[in-house]
Amino acid sequence: MGKKVKTAITPTRKEDYPSWYQEVVKASDMAENSPVRGCMVIKPWGYALWENIMHQMDERFKETGVKNAYFPLFIPLSYMEKEAEHVEGFAKECAVVTHHKLEHGEDNKLVPAGKLQEPLIVRPTSETIIGESMSRWTSSYRDLPILLNQWANVVRWEMRTRMFLRTSEFLWQEGHTAHASKDEAEARTLMMLKLYTRFVEDLLAMPVIEGRKTESERFPGADDTLCIEAMMQDNKALQAGTSHFLGQNFAKGSNIKFQTEAGEEEFAWTTSWGTSTRMIGGMIMVHSDDDGLVVPPRVAPAHVVLLPIFKKGEDPADVLAHVRALKDELGSILYHGRKLVVEIDDRDTGGARGWDWVKKGIPLRLEIGPKDIANNSVFMGRRDKAPNEKKSMLQTDFASSVTAILDEIQQNYFDRALAFQKEYTFEIDSKDEFYRLYTDHPDLPHGGFALSHWCGSRACEEKIKQDLSVTIRCLPFEHKGDQGRCIYCDADSPQRVVFAKAY
Amino acid sequence: MGKKVKTAITPTRKEDYPSWYQEVVKASDMAENSPVRGCMVIKPWGYALWENIMHQMDERFKETGVKNAYFPLFIPLSYMEKEAEHVEGFAKECAVVTHHKLEHGEDNKLVPAGKLQEPLIVRPTSETIIGESMSRWTSSYRDLPILLNQWANVVRWEMRTRMFLRTSEFLWQEGHTAHASKDEAEARTLMMLKLYTRFVEDLLAMPVIEGRKTESERFPGADDTLCIEAMMQDNKALQAGTSHFLGQNFAKGSNIKFQTEAGEEEFAWTTSWGTSTRMIGGMIMVHSDDDGLVVPPRVAPAHVVLLPIFKKGEDPADVLAHVRALKDELGSILYHGRKLVVEIDDRDTGGARGWDWVKKGIPLRLEIGPKDIANNSVFMGRRDKAPNEKKSMLQTDFASSVTAILDEIQQNYFDRALAFQKEYTFEIDSKDEFYRLYTDHPDLPHGGFALSHWCGSRACEEKIKQDLSVTIRCLPFEHKGDQGRCIYCDADSPQRVVFAKAY
Repeated sequence: MGKKVKTAITPTRKEDYPSWYQEVVKASDMAENSPVRGCMVIKPWGYALWENIMHQMDERFKETGVKNAYFPLFIPLSYMEKEAEHVEGFAKECAVVTHHKLEHGEDNKLVPAGKLQEPLIVRPTSETIIGESMSRWTSSYRDLPILLNQWANVVRWEMRTRMFLRTSEFLWQEGHTAHASKDEAEARTLMMLKLYTRFVEDLLAMPVIEGRKTESERFPGADDTLCIEAMMQDNKALQAGTSHFLGQNFAKGSNIKFQTEAGEEEFAWTTSWGTSTRMIGGMIMVHSDDDGLVVPPRVAPAHVVLLPIFKKGEDPADVLAHVRALKDELGSILYHGRKLVVEIDDRDTGGARGWDWVKKGIPLRLEIGPKDIANNSVFMGRRDKAPNEKKSMLQTDFASSVTAILDEIQQNYFDRALAFQKEYTFEIDSKDEFYRLYTDHPDLPHGGFALSHWCGSRACEEKIKQDLSVTIRCLPFEHKGDQGRCIYCDADSPQRVVFAKAY
Repeated sequence: MGKKVKTAITPTRKEDYPSWYQEVVKASDMAENSPVRGCMVIKPWGYALWENIMHQMDERFKETGVKNAYFPLFIPLSYMEKEAEHVEGFAKECAVVTHHKLEHGEDNKLVPAGKLQEPLIVRPTSETIIGESMSRWTSSYRDLPILLNQWANVVRWEMRTRMFLRTSEFLWQEGHTAHASKDEAEARTLMMLKLYTRFVEDLLAMPVIEGRKTESERFPGADDTLCIEAMMQDNKALQAGTSHFLGQNFAKGSNIKFQTEAGEEEFAWTTSWGTSTRMIGGMIMVHSDDDGLVVPPRVAPAHVVLLPIFKKGEDPADVLAHVRALKDELGSILYHGRKLVVEIDDRDTGGARGWDWVKKGIPLRLEIGPKDIANNSVFMGRRDKAPNEKKSMLQTDFASSVTAILDEIQQNYFDRALAFQKEYTFEIDSKDEFYRLYTDHPDLPHGGFALSHWCGSRACEEKIKQDLSVTIRCLPFEHKGDQGRCIYCDADSPQRVVFAKAY
C-alpha cells in the first residue's frame, strides 16, 4: 500500500463526499452560507462564473428569437391557485409577504404592521404572473408566438439546504413562450432542451443524458417535462435543466386566448424552461478533485494567473513590470469571442499562493521569476495535470498556444466526465442485481445509473423509490427501442429508463 | 395663431405632463403596470434598454476594481436595527415575510402557515446584510479595501407609484465598499459619483448638476450623500444617482473591524452608491417629445429599423432579400464597441408602421422600396428631426456614415437638454421673486432650478419646503464661492444652492 497522498482538500471525495463538496466551495472562495436561513452569499469568484454562464446562455437564447423581460417578484396568492396541480406543487415551500411596514411595538421593538388584504407570494416560478400578462397581450394569432425569458431570483423555502445545490433563494433564468399550435410549442420545448444540452456539454463540459420525466416527476401543471441529467462523482444524478410543455393548462388558468386565422377562438399552447445556479453545484461535483475546484475554461472567472517570483535582494520592480506587460498581452487574446481574463497574484505567501489558485480551479498558472525572464520562458502548471507537474516553455510559445491549451483542458474535462459516466452506467436486467447495486455494493455507496426496463406503471416506480430511494431520472431519448421486462414486476416494457439516486 | 399640429402622443407635454409620460411609456411598449400593487412589467423594449445600461455601467465599475457579488434577498428584522437612522428611514415602507408556506384553511382557501420565528424584510437596500459579510471577511488592513457591487431587485412599499420613476419593486445596482481610511472612503464616494456623471451625460445624454445633499436629504445613516440632479421637461428635478460616504456608522453597527498596520484595532470606513431603473424614467422625461419616446443611440434597444415597401403586384421577395442583406451588413458595424442592432418591420400596416417606430424612439428609420433599390438608395428618417423630414441617400453613404449620424443624434439630444436646463435655471436673490417663480409664474407651473443663497439652517430649508414644496436638490460642487444672503432669512450664506420641485 502506498502512503496517503497529501491533498489540498480534507476530507477527500472518498472519505466524505458531502463534506468534501462544502470544503471545495469554501476553499475556492465561491460562496458561503449566510446567516439568513437557507440563503447563501455568492462571492466574486462564484458570481463571475455565473455571469459567464448568463452572458453566453443569453446570447444563445437571443439567437432563437427570445427576448428578455422582467416580471414582478410578488405573486398574489389568488394567482397561484389558477392551475390546480401547480399550487399543490409550490404551496408547501414559499415565502409569504403579509405586511408592508414595521412599527414600534412593546418594549419599542419593531413588529410587522400594515397588514395586506391579500398575501403575496415571493415567486417560486413565474408561470402564473407571466400568464396574466400574456393573456392581455394576446388577441390574434398574429400576436403569437411570444418568446420571453427573465433572469431573476426565486424563492422556495427549503428545509435542508446546500450551497448552489439547494438554497431557499436562488438565481435562475426562466423562459416562457406562448404559441398558436401544439406542434410549435412542443418543438420549442425540445429546442430549448437541446440548447441546454449543447450549453452544458460544450461550456460546462458536463456530459448529460437527455430524456423525458415520468408523470410523477413532472413539473406541477405540465403535460410533459424534458430534462438533462448528469452524473456526479458520487454516482448520484443531478438534473441540470428542464423544459416543460405546458399544453393549454396554464393558458386556461390565465385565460391566454387568441383568434385563429380561421376566426375561431382558441387557448394558446405554452412552454417554460429553466436553469439555475444549481448548474454550478453540478459543475463543481462533476469536475472538482481532492485538490479543490476545477472549472472548465469556457466559463472560468479567470483563465491564467501570473505568479511573479521575487528573489531576495533583487528589485521586484523588474519582475512586476514584466508580468504586468504579459498580463496586457495575454488579456488581449480572444478565446471563443471573449478576451482572456488574466490575474496577477503578487502576494508574498510562498507555496501557499500556488495552492490557493489550484483550489480556485484556475486553468493555468504561470510562475515567472528573474531566471525565466532571462530565458524568455514561463513555468506553467495546468489544472488538468497534477499540481506539481509543471513545465517550462518559451513565453512566445505560451502566448501563441494558450487558447489551444485551454481548449485541450476543456476537452479533457469533458472526456474524463464522460468516461466516468459510462463506467458507472449499467444495463441491468435482474431485479436482484438492481437491488444489490443500490444497497450493498462495496465500492459504490450510491450505485450509479441503472439502464433497466420499466413497465410504465406508477406503482412500480413508487415501490422502487420507497425501497431504495432510487427514482427514474428520465426516459432517455437515445434508447435502442428494445423490448424487455420490467425490472420490478416483470411485465412488458417498451424501453430502458435511467434509474439513479439523485440530488 | 397656427393650427394645432397633430402629434402621436395625446395629451402633449404642455397639456398634461404626467399623462403624457404614461402615454409615452405605453406607446413605446417599454413597460406596463402589473396587477401586483405598485409593481410594473418591464417589456422587451424597456428591458433591452436596461440591459444596455447594465452592461456598459458594469464595464466601468470593473475598470475601477469593483467586483460583482450577490447577497440574500431577505434581511432579518434585527439586522435592520443595527443603524438607528437607517431603520427609521426604511421601516415605513418595506415588505415583510412572516410565513413560509400555505395551507388549506376554511372553505379550502389557501392561507399563510408556518410562521417564522423572526420576520424577514425584503431588502430595501443591503447595507446591513452586506455589512454582516464584510465583518466576517475583514480582520487585517490587508483585507481592505473590499469593492463590491450587486445587480438586484429591491422593494420599498410605495403608496403612489409611477412606472420607472417610483415602483414598489425596482431593479438597481448597489455598490458597497469598505476601506482602511476615511480619506480613501471619501475618495471612492466621489469617484463613483463622477463615474455616474460621465455615464449619465455620455450615454443617457442627460446633463446633470453634481453636488452634495443637505443633512435632511441624506441617505438614512450616511455622513454625506453626493448626488447628480437632472432637469425634466416640466422643470422639476430628478435625482439620477447617489453616492454615500457612510463614515464608520454602518461599520460600528455591523462590527466591521480590522487591525491597522500599526497593530491597532479600528472600524472600517464604508461607502455605498446606487442607480436604478429610475434613470430610465428620467431619460424618458428629459428627451421624449409629443411624438413619443426618444432614446439616445448609445443605450437604444435598437439603432436602425428597416421598413421594406412592397408594391402591389410585385414580388415582395426581392425587397425582403435586399433588406435582410442590408440588416446583416449594418449589423456587423461597430458602434462604440458594440454591434449595431438592426430591426426589420415587414408588417403591412402602411403609415402606422413608421409612426410605431417614431413612438418607440428608434434613432434611424430607413424606408426601402423597389425604386430605392434600383437607385441604390435608402430613404432615411431621424428621430432628432421632424417625423416627415426624411432624406434620400445612397445606401453605401448611409452605411459609411451611420455611426457618425448616431453620434450626431446623441450630441443633439445632449445639447438640447443642456440648453433647456440652462434656460430654466435662474440666479435669484430676492425672496419675492423666488416665491413668485414657484407659485404664480404663468408659463412655468413648476418653476425651474433656482440658484439662490442659503444660510445652512434646517429651519429655512424646512420653511421653504412647507411653503412651496421646493427642496434643496444639492449644494453644487461648481459654484462661484460667492458670499451672499439667505433667500429666506437674509443671514450670511457661503454659497448658492440648487432649489427645485422634485420627483
